[in-house]
Amino acid sequence: MKHFTHFRDLSPAIASAIITRARVLKSGERSNALANKLLGLLFMDPSLRTRTSFDAAATKLGGQAIPLDVGQGVWGLEFLDNIAMNGDKPEHVREAAGVLSQYVDILGVRAFSHGEGLASDEADRVIGAFRKHATVPVISLESAREHPCQGLADLMTMQEEFGDLSQVNIALSWAPHIKSLPRAVPNSVLLTAAAMGAKIKIAHPLGYALAPEITAEAIKLSEQTGAKIEFFTNQQSALRGAHVLYAKSWGQTDALVAPPNDPSLASWMPTEKHFDLADPKAIFMHCLPVRRGVEVAHEVLDGPHSRVLEEAGNRLWVQMAALEYLLS
Amino acid sequence: MKHFTHFRDLSPAIASAIITRARVLKSGERSNALANKLLGLLFMDPSLRTRTSFDAAATKLGGQAIPLDVGQGVWGLEFLDNIAMNGDKPEHVREAAGVLSQYVDILGVRAFSHGEGLASDEADRVIGAFRKHATVPVISLESAREHPCQGLADLMTMQEEFGDLSQVNIALSWAPHIKSLPRAVPNSVLLTAAAMGAKIKIAHPLGYALAPEITAEAIKLSEQTGAKIEFFTNQQSALRGAHVLYAKSWGQTDALVAPPNDPSLASWMPTEKHFDLADPKAIFMHCLPVRRGVEVAHEVLDGPHSRVLEEAGNRLWVQMAALEYLLS
Amino acid sequence: MKHFTHFRDLSPAIASAIITRARVLKSGERSNALANKLLGLLFMDPSLRTRTSFDAAATKLGGQAIPLDVGQGVWGLEFLDNIAMNGDKPEHVREAAGVLSQYVDILGVRAFSHGEGLASDEADRVIGAFRKHATVPVISLESAREHPCQGLADLMTMQEEFGDLSQVNIALSWAPHIKSLPRAVPNSVLLTAAAMGAKIKIAHPLGYALAPEITAEAIKLSEQTGAKIEFFTNQQSALRGAHVLYAKSWGQTDALVAPPNDPSLASWMPTEKHFDLADPKAIFMHCLPVRRGVEVAHEVLDGPHSRVLEEAGNRLWVQMAALEYLLS
Repeated sequence: MKHFTHFRDLSPAIASAIITRARVLKSGERSNALANKLLGLLFMDPSLRTRTSFDAAATKLGGQAIPLDVGQGVWGLEFLDNIAMNGDKPEHVREAAGVLSQYVDILGVRAFSHGEGLASDEADRVIGAFRKHATVPVISLESAREHPCQGLADLMTMQEEFGDLSQVNIALSWAPHIKSLPRAVPNSVLLTAAAMGAKIKIAHPLGYALAPEITAEAIKLSEQTGAKIEFFTNQQSALRGAHVLYAKSWGQTDALVAPPNDPSLASWMPTEKHFDLADPKAIFMHCLPVRRGVEVAHEVLDGPHSRVLEEAGNRLWVQMAALEYLLS
Repeated sequence: MKHFTHFRDLSPAIASAIITRARVLKSGERSNALANKLLGLLFMDPSLRTRTSFDAAATKLGGQAIPLDVGQGVWGLEFLDNIAMNGDKPEHVREAAGVLSQYVDILGVRAFSHGEGLASDEADRVIGAFRKHATVPVISLESAREHPCQGLADLMTMQEEFGDLSQVNIALSWAPHIKSLPRAVPNSVLLTAAAMGAKIKIAHPLGYALAPEITAEAIKLSEQTGAKIEFFTNQQSALRGAHVLYAKSWGQTDALVAPPNDPSLASWMPTEKHFDLADPKAIFMHCLPVRRGVEVAHEVLDGPHSRVLEEAGNRLWVQMAALEYLLS
Repeated sequence: MKHFTHFRDLSPAIASAIITRARVLKSGERSNALANKLLGLLFMDPSLRTRTSFDAAATKLGGQAIPLDVGQGVWGLEFLDNIAMNGDKPEHVREAAGVLSQYVDILGVRAFSHGEGLASDEADRVIGAFRKHATVPVISLESAREHPCQGLADLMTMQEEFGDLSQVNIALSWAPHIKSLPRAVPNSVLLTAAAMGAKIKIAHPLGYALAPEITAEAIKLSEQTGAKIEFFTNQQSALRGAHVLYAKSWGQTDALVAPPNDPSLASWMPTEKHFDLADPKAIFMHCLPVRRGVEVAHEVLDGPHSRVLEEAGNRLWVQMAALEYLLS
């Protein structure tokens, strides 16, 4: 039985095959891979794109989704083992995962990082518990460590635009925000780009580094694929010659540095001017939702560089291909 | 691409054709107009009839609905343009509408008036933003200005009862309530009745007038169709000879007049006695939900005049016909 | 028109036939009993198993479920008759049930006991109102008095394990909890076991008796079927020779006795040691959700006796068979 909750569940070749299949499905080929099958979608955090695109994906594949909201309609879940459950969580993941596995054929789970540090994100306890206790394939709808379907959709979008990914320069830039956000998206963009052999320059302020485990995993992938990974604490260095400006905010690891809403970091918000150093054909990407005028300038989102809608649209197709893969 | 968020999106002839088609569907004719298609249903306000009947309509047409609750499971939405999004709404309608358009084939939106005055209702900013930024047909699940599917279901119910609508006298009467409600339903009943050529007498207390734009639009429709529209601030004048007593509460426009729960307005609550002046075959209608014993007497809702359940049932059939129309 | 909200809606023979049919469906036989049909699922209380398994059941039978959460997306419901509805419930069950009956073919309703005493549970006002005002079959998703699909799934699980139910000794034992829970599950286990002719020993602390009406109904069933029912206020007496240890917490009826979380009752929590007196092949059952380390020891849930997952899995099959029965 296969799971897909982290990039390491795929090889670079399989990731590439999923993107290729996604493009075939987008071109109009029909599939009934989920005929008579049910996809459970368990949300512990909010969602617009993921909820709708997975529901649509299940239906387009001839199946049916069952969305469930934990703690809202559905009992709150406990994840700690060997405790006396005398708090506000009436159900344990051991039972929930075991039970749902008997009703659905694939189980999607969304469980964000709650900002308990990089070690906690790396452990990815919640999605790990579902992998352990479910008896059907588990697919991530974004967890503390990664958002793997986002990574696939992002690289698919770059491939549609530029073809051969080994020639694509990606500037993955930190952006300001009103609060400290999880790192799942930048982690997945980095890992997927590394596996696809792209050239990635990651820029963030001091104190905002990605986790060493993620960086090490990306470097290991790059050794297989010829990808090139560089880190900068200066945004301009990353933008030079970029084909893709991928912006995303995430939280600091060092409590002593300026927080994401500090005025001293406001210049990290992409504007049209940020494209001056980039390749003339450069595109702008962001996983959404995006805070306009805080994280990204209106002019960029509404301007000619933006591919944020196409990128979100591709979520549907990569997820259809990923569901096919899990059932194959 | 067609939208259906306001009555003006249809001509009287098309509205009439939708009602005729709804009656054919109700009589048992099957349709697969939504085969392999998805209907997104985005709720910014609560719903029983609309949510269930649109979901049922999509399924009966061979398609599938995806209900989404904004701010509850789904990210809260911002509608103001050109602001710095540093508040509690993490996503802008520009992205939300553009993204959802790639996952679904039709997008339904519910966004009530929040009592910011007639000018705000008239502007109907939220549903307007979805029309502007969606790239698929948008259908109203009730907005600040109108509840157009309710209007169609109401006139269908009258037609089933009395046949030729040009001979039907409708008394659309204000009713008491514990709070100030939106005008979308009376607006839609008036516009649809005017377009169908009926005779409408609208009664409400002083200070509770409908918006001048709605009245003007209804009068213009009546000039095409021969409908007759009269306004009264006295309930009895409207009830005389009525074939339909349609009751509904809405809020005052003039802060100096008695509020909807003022004891001096309690006699506006329809009782059996209110039918003394009406036609002997008169029926009672209300869009539901209704506060029994406050807005309408129990005896009326449980008595022989009531058609409130039939009226709600007809929502299903007009919505199926409207969805067919949007895809045709 | 048939309803299934209480065990008394079935005869023992029909209950037995539903379990037999459930086992056929579980063995892989396909059914299209719900083709082109809609199952409304109205939740007034949280649910994981019931929500997911009924949704899955509808889909597996070729139909479609429409889940609705009252008071959360869907208008709050009033159940009292002849009152002025000036509180926080904008809609009455008379309208809600009548309207939904026009959109769906079967209506499922979940409405827990809210601890207003045994007489209130016995009256079962909420589910009773839906039976009265709906014009389609109503099926219980658990009400104040009973959880009838749970009872069927439980006896199916015992039958799969031991075959002939007349030879099965069931120890239905009260268990500790952090709060006072409803009695719907023990009521349904008792009634269904009595109807299936099993031998049931019910153990609970003083002041925790089941309702006299339930006991009387079970005794009456046992007179038809040869079931044997005994009550103990001592857990060990019930465990002796048991094939099934069925644990479940419920609230006290006597305010003077120790509450469910009283340390003096902690020994009622099943541990591996509790199986010492039981039959060597004894199994452990619980309806879930279960508070580990409070209501049942981890070692039991994770150990060889446990059948709690199989039991939850059987909910799907008995519900498919019950839906077939309601439409037959």
